[in-house]
Amino acid sequence: MSIRIKCVVQYDGSRYHGFQKQINSRTVQDEIEKVLTKINKQPIIIHASGRTDAFVHALGQVFHFTTKLDMKEENWKRAINSMLPTDIYIKNVEIVTSEFHSRFSSKKKEYRYYISMDEFNPLRSQYVCFQRDTLNLEKINEALKLFIGTHDFTSFSSGKIEKNRVRTIYEAKMKVCGKELEFIFKGNGFLRYQIRIMMGTLIEIGKGKREVDSLKQLFVIKDRTKASFTAEPQALYLYSVEY
Amino acid sequence: MSIRIKCVVQYDGSRYHGFQKQINSRTVQDEIEKVLTKINKQPIIIHASGRTDAFVHALGQVFHFTTKLDMKEENWKRAINSMLPTDIYIKNVEIVTSEFHSRFSSKKKEYRYYISMDEFNPLRSQYVCFQRDTLNLEKINEALKLFIGTHDFTSFSSGKIEKNRVRTIYEAKMKVCGKELEFIFKGNGFLRYQIRIMMGTLIEIGKGKREVDSLKQLFVIKDRTKASFTAEPQALYLYSVEY
Repeated sequence: MSIRIKCVVQYDGSRYHGFQKQINSRTVQDEIEKVLTKINKQPIIIHASGRTDAFVHALGQVFHFTTKLDMKEENWKRAINSMLPTDIYIKNVEIVTSEFHSRFSSKKKEYRYYISMDEFNPLRSQYVCFQRDTLNLEKINEALKLFIGTHDFTSFSSGKIEKNRVRTIYEAKMKVCGKELEFIFKGNGFLRYQIRIMMGTLIEIGKGKREVDSLKQLFVIKDRTKASFTAEPQALYLYSVEY
Repeated sequence: MSIRIKCVVQYDGSRYHGFQKQINSRTVQDEIEKVLTKINKQPIIIHASGRTDAFVHALGQVFHFTTKLDMKEENWKRAINSMLPTDIYIKNVEIVTSEFHSRFSSKKKEYRYYISMDEFNPLRSQYVCFQRDTLNLEKINEALKLFIGTHDFTSFSSGKIEKNRVRTIYEAKMKVCGKELEFIFKGNGFLRYQIRIMMGTLIEIGKGKREVDSLKQLFVIKDRTKASFTAEPQALYLYSVEY
């Protein structure tokens, strides 16, 4: 009998070339599959809700795998965590039905992005994006509202991987905590680099290098070269996936 | 003419085998000397307030060096930082007299140590020490008071490097911030491993494995084997050095 297991995983992406397996690079998927293959004594492949880029972190990435081993959820959690490196941690294990698919069953994803307007701090350099220029927070707030809704995000994507680039953003907001800005994005799914290009565009708006209204145009012209730079990866966190 | 420069440096110790230069290991001193040697176009040796162990962080380590280059303080800061890796950062540069010595002129040092009683978080694993057992904070507070004053800390040292192991602690206190404990230690100087062995002993007291009063004995018997384990390095921060 084959059992399907859903796992919520957290990781510090600093030392990884992203989530997804690739040749000659250390990835989060490799580390997890190595451990599961040892526990199961046969090759295990995991399926995640989606990839994350190199240096991006996760507080609630989700993956599933199929096994013949019949173990209690808490025993799975303990067994996997005891063998993983300290920068990857299984937060939750759940036995699910074979209908569950971490990617195709996902309904909502939340990402967060952190900007610090404080002096550079080497202890935070892998975890936030430092911006020394003054940012116009009112303009950024205006711009954030324009992202909400269903749009074609071609201008905010690498344009290579996904064919359908229409996505819905349910929530896009900013919280100010002292000199740190926390950005929260909830949507039905995000394209590769989408949030980082959206953040690059918001930073340019905050610096006064771009008009708020230019966003509306970007949804229409569908041209990556007209949006801003791709913001740094280390400030991005996959916060949660809902099913 | 030879100019003496004092620098305050911050670093994330995660990727370094400590501050002090050693053969075949990457250290913070190596990285800084490499940069200064390039800027000065001749070999530069730096002198720090003291070493820090592998994986220990610093928010206010101090070092000095001697140079023939006549540059403004802010230009030194910019030049060095532009060439350092992102996990080391020069916070402040000051031109000082030749009497200044980062080690021999230091009057007071402050270290901090962080314990988290929350569930393990891989994003914090290089920065705090996780303790899942319940700790008796009242007992820890009692014990902290006993550290204050002038004592022979032989029981709390590796016992190899320093001959005189009498040190004075001016302040030893704990702040509770949610599920995190911040320990603050100020003294005229600390022996190698001293704070980590003190922390190991405090953790054992908190767990009820050791009596508070046993500390008094440790100052008298001067025996490392009678104190507790050396607590993990990654939760320790050299916070500041005063002159």
